[in-house]
Amino acid sequence: MPDFAEPLARLINEFKHLPGIGQKSAQRIAFHVLRAGREHAERLSQAILDVKDKLALCRLCNNISESELCLFCRDPNRDQTVVCVVEEPQGILGIETTRQFPGLYHVLHGAIAPLDGIGPDDLKLKELLMRLGGEVAVREVIIATNATVEGEATALYLARLLKPLGVKTTRLARGLPAGGDLEYSDAATLSSALNNRRDF
Amino acid sequence: MPDFAEPLARLINEFKHLPGIGQKSAQRIAFHVLRAGREHAERLSQAILDVKDKLALCRLCNNISESELCLFCRDPNRDQTVVCVVEEPQGILGIETTRQFPGLYHVLHGAIAPLDGIGPDDLKLKELLMRLGGEVAVREVIIATNATVEGEATALYLARLLKPLGVKTTRLARGLPAGGDLEYSDAATLSSALNNRRDF
Repeated sequence: MPDFAEPLARLINEFKHLPGIGQKSAQRIAFHVLRAGREHAERLSQAILDVKDKLALCRLCNNISESELCLFCRDPNRDQTVVCVVEEPQGILGIETTRQFPGLYHVLHGAIAPLDGIGPDDLKLKELLMRLGGEVAVREVIIATNATVEGEATALYLARLLKPLGVKTTRLARGLPAGGDLEYSDAATLSSALNNRRDF
Repeated sequence: MPDFAEPLARLINEFKHLPGIGQKSAQRIAFHVLRAGREHAERLSQAILDVKDKLALCRLCNNISESELCLFCRDPNRDQTVVCVVEEPQGILGIETTRQFPGLYHVLHGAIAPLDGIGPDDLKLKELLMRLGGEVAVREVIIATNATVEGEATALYLARLLKPLGVKTTRLARGLPAGGDLEYSDAATLSSALNNRRDF
């Protein structure tokens, strides 16, 4: 016998399938929704549909956008000659938190992962090449893929792809994270930190 | 400048206001919804509205129900002469996981909490008294409010309320939880465990 009325069981089940939410959290959230006012439920419900209906990819950089050009691409104050390449739109957030990057972005929507069947053709690489061949001269491409095996593979592939174009290509530095403790750093991180050591 | 397109920012904000979900989790879930198929978003969206539209309180026990009587109250196999009183519908789940309770429930929808302005009149106490005065003779009321200050206060209040009715009233045992370690038990738990010690 089920312990919940059907609509409640169904909502718990839906929440449970969201990332990072288990049975207990799903129950807690479902009861919260049940208890909250109807307009609250309507807002949440509508917001979910709206991200599907009102968002598409930016024509230029493939970031998520509600108009043809995303917030960054349509901002006249951004430096159009520097392009930072990220795997996912979420990566843009990370870079933006530094408040130090004045340029534009390019979202690949993935990384090369042969084991998952994701090859270069599944990424927005053609779009990047077309963009670099466009009217705005790009003087630097910063490859900001993740520091994972897939991210590294993608970075290498991309660097080779960009070489013939003669555009300056850089990669985010690897090394100790802020607050990093040598004792708890892994070998790969320490190797990078050693190899990329800088003069005082 | 906002980092997200408006519909995405709105969805993140909505998720962020659900219990146990912070900024990062909200982002992760919002991007998941964005990426998932439209029918997935529709199911979630509809499930949220359905708990508001299709659920009400059981006429007898105030549990959440999609029909006049809840799953338990309309089950002919449950023992109608034992009533377990819980603060919230979630409490029923806890009791049900034991698979040992054959009776019915009564949901108070809260506990006496003067500091939060919640008094006896805000709870479904009248409904319980009416039920006990009804046609089915209840032979035992098990008070299963939480082992918190509010839960204890509610239990005491309820026990006093039930005394004149002459119905047997019991309270869930207090003591060491299963797997409990004396070293890490708090004084209140150990006091209960000592005071309620049982003969071998």
